[in-house]
Amino acid sequence: ALRMRPFAGPSVWLEFTPLSKLTSSVNLGQGAPGWASPPFVKKALVKACQDDSYCQYARSAGAPVLVEQIARQYAPKVLPSTMKSRKIDPATEIVVTVGASQAISLACTALLQEGDEAILIEPAFDMYTAAVQMAGATPVYIPFRSRSNGAIATANDLCVDLEDLENAVTEKTRMFVLNTPHNPLGKVFSRDELIEIADVLDRKAPSCIVMSDEVYEHLVFEGEHVPFASVSENAFDRTLSIYSFGKTFSSTGTKIGWVVGPHNLIRDLQIAQQFVVFCTNHMGQAAAAEALELSQAPYDNFSTYFDWICDVYRKKRDFLVEVIRAAGLEPIVPQGAFYICARVPDGHPLKEKTGVPEKVQELVKEGKLQIDPGTVDRSDYNISRRLVVQKGVTTIPISAFVKPELVGESALSKDFIRFAFCHPDHVLKEASRRLR
Amino acid sequence: ALRMRPFAGPSVWLEFTPLSKLTSSVNLGQGAPGWASPPFVKKALVKACQDDSYCQYARSAGAPVLVEQIARQYAPKVLPSTMKSRKIDPATEIVVTVGASQAISLACTALLQEGDEAILIEPAFDMYTAAVQMAGATPVYIPFRSRSNGAIATANDLCVDLEDLENAVTEKTRMFVLNTPHNPLGKVFSRDELIEIADVLDRKAPSCIVMSDEVYEHLVFEGEHVPFASVSENAFDRTLSIYSFGKTFSSTGTKIGWVVGPHNLIRDLQIAQQFVVFCTNHMGQAAAAEALELSQAPYDNFSTYFDWICDVYRKKRDFLVEVIRAAGLEPIVPQGAFYICARVPDGHPLKEKTGVPEKVQELVKEGKLQIDPGTVDRSDYNISRRLVVQKGVTTIPISAFVKPELVGESALSKDFIRFAFCHPDHVLKEASRRLR
Ligand SMILES: CSCCC(=O)C(=O)O
Ligand SMILES: CSCCC(=O)C(=O)O
Repeated sequence: ALRMRPFAGPSVWLEFTPLSKLTSSVNLGQGAPGWASPPFVKKALVKACQDDSYCQYARSAGAPVLVEQIARQYAPKVLPSTMKSRKIDPATEIVVTVGASQAISLACTALLQEGDEAILIEPAFDMYTAAVQMAGATPVYIPFRSRSNGAIATANDLCVDLEDLENAVTEKTRMFVLNTPHNPLGKVFSRDELIEIADVLDRKAPSCIVMSDEVYEHLVFEGEHVPFASVSENAFDRTLSIYSFGKTFSSTGTKIGWVVGPHNLIRDLQIAQQFVVFCTNHMGQAAAAEALELSQAPYDNFSTYFDWICDVYRKKRDFLVEVIRAAGLEPIVPQGAFYICARVPDGHPLKEKTGVPEKVQELVKEGKLQIDPGTVDRSDYNISRRLVVQKGVTTIPISAFVKPELVGESALSKDFIRFAFCHPDHVLKEASRRLR
Repeated sequence: ALRMRPFAGPSVWLEFTPLSKLTSSVNLGQGAPGWASPPFVKKALVKACQDDSYCQYARSAGAPVLVEQIARQYAPKVLPSTMKSRKIDPATEIVVTVGASQAISLACTALLQEGDEAILIEPAFDMYTAAVQMAGATPVYIPFRSRSNGAIATANDLCVDLEDLENAVTEKTRMFVLNTPHNPLGKVFSRDELIEIADVLDRKAPSCIVMSDEVYEHLVFEGEHVPFASVSENAFDRTLSIYSFGKTFSSTGTKIGWVVGPHNLIRDLQIAQQFVVFCTNHMGQAAAAEALELSQAPYDNFSTYFDWICDVYRKKRDFLVEVIRAAGLEPIVPQGAFYICARVPDGHPLKEKTGVPEKVQELVKEGKLQIDPGTVDRSDYNISRRLVVQKGVTTIPISAFVKPELVGESALSKDFIRFAFCHPDHVLKEASRRLR
């Protein structure tokens, strides 16, 4: 179909995950935790699989046990302070999705159409672009800009220029995509930044929907996570907030995510959901409900599971930042999420050669690996490929998150690669050894 | 979005499942088995949830353990006899989906576009129409015709008129949707019928894709299930065959289905799948692989699980057919699947009144129930509603499977309701008692 035309080749995930396996590399590529789900999550899953109540279809928009739990936990987060007497209605203001990925595609399917424009901040997670394009709409990109002039030391040095945003708005603008904490940068938008963005939208694009991907909500190492919906009543009324059971509970295999928002938006997603997947797996939903409930209890000397998991990741971030520096690369220190973007400076050994490494070409020839032909000349892809082949460490090239036409234009699309630190310490140490 | 415009109200599932619950009716509506998954399936699920290998994302197009099992089991079924030396490639000729529902929407998303036409035989499962329309394409309907002149005694009295099919083909025809065993009718297409259909397509629509929904493949009470793909090499080359773990293993809550087909078609589905759900839940996939493997072993005095489950359903069909007759309705005896369509004859007490029953109107007023405003004047909907209110038995009105414009035109869209017999004997007996 026409809507599939931009997607001729495998996505970045379908190149680097197989490449990593084929070469037995240390895989710091795709953002899947390198450990099992925590014991209380596994137990909840086992219990759900033994319970006869969950063997058959769930309610299409989400099992009552889960949406009620979500409504309770998220109302205080996503509602602005002036709406605190309001609640989130579990029946009409939540949709449970097949992970956050399907939340993204569902929102675009339900709300976008041919001729619409969606504003994305690039680098932007590749699924936003894909979902917008598959819905027949056009992604319009604004760049992250650097506050400083020199190298970008930390992700929070990057910001959205409000003029860029204003200029991007047209009468066709139907959606603005926000992602905080940000993948791949690790930027955490402050309340002030969000209020400024909300103001621009209120003035320039009053009917624009905001799709706010907040799947790393609990992984914030400095500052705090502010849901975009919570900054004002207008913001709440226009926002779909997306969350992920997989990212928060190290359980991406369960494929459970959810969208919270005002019923007039969620309604359209609920209608579409009936026909795209009908419902998500019932066992996973029951387990997610139980895990959310249990997450409030003290955990391993922390006051909640969320505090514990955030601390786990903070230490890993600190370790991997040093590893990256020691390897002669220039990390952008993230304030949230579980990725580090790093620039490969001129003169670095990884830049000595260009082109697709021979080993990768061989794997492609042997039919063991597919690569997107559009990427053979991209320097960050080839740096990532070379890192796999030469050092046995897998990363993700940042231009995967940049519109092809913009690659090279964008400050961040050249020679930046992304390391995931959602891995056990021994794996990060092995990566460190290999990168030295 | 424009593509959602045909779907203003809740689907038939979102009216009758809640209505059934609100009235504590015996629910013979939506086709979800009224029992738990069999013990070997539950055990496989529990095992998968305990296994660290399945905690995180699966391969996008399907976990290797599952696609390899599918390739082995389905190659002998879907390949025509002249291609028996060929195999099904697990990597490129299978996509695992979020149940068969998502297989349907994925195929339409990946392959259809604005301006395309898809030919459906009506009554047609409502998700086909929805998926075709959401992809921007236009459903074109041909009716099932009766071979006999009088009442339709069994589903196999119904057939596709090849002239209807020929006449429906235009230069825009891109897809033909087949469903065997058929939901809601229970018709099982014979090899000869499929060969005739294949011939028409070969002659008149050489580039038409066939989406063949065969989720009830194992539930055939007379004759045998013939996969459309298997009738000729041309048929194989144009067909996506859709199967369901949930329907076969009484495990619809797992939301695992799969599509088998030639790689040039499956390729497009695999590309789209990356961006619509990324992958399906990993535990369910691992359990499905194990269940498929175990299904080959003797089961409760039958030579396989498939033989056993088919026998279970056959007895339930025989019982419910008699119940329906005793209630003064005229069943179409199904040869497959787990539904019985029945006509409500003139003079039947269920036809004494017309309009939406008061009790249903009240529930709508109280905000407890949603109904599609487009259905308030449909006589089969109101018969189904009245059956719930008066007798406490839930069914599905057949016009849900007929294009609104055609309701009343189609022989089968008037005063036919569907009973599901995927329920424990005590439930069917209770339905019998209530219907008397
Ligand atoms: C389907 S990709 C999911 C993982 C992820 O979010 C990432 O690696 O960026
Ligand atoms: C999502 S509806 C699934 C059940 C079904 O196939 C039916 O009842 O017809």
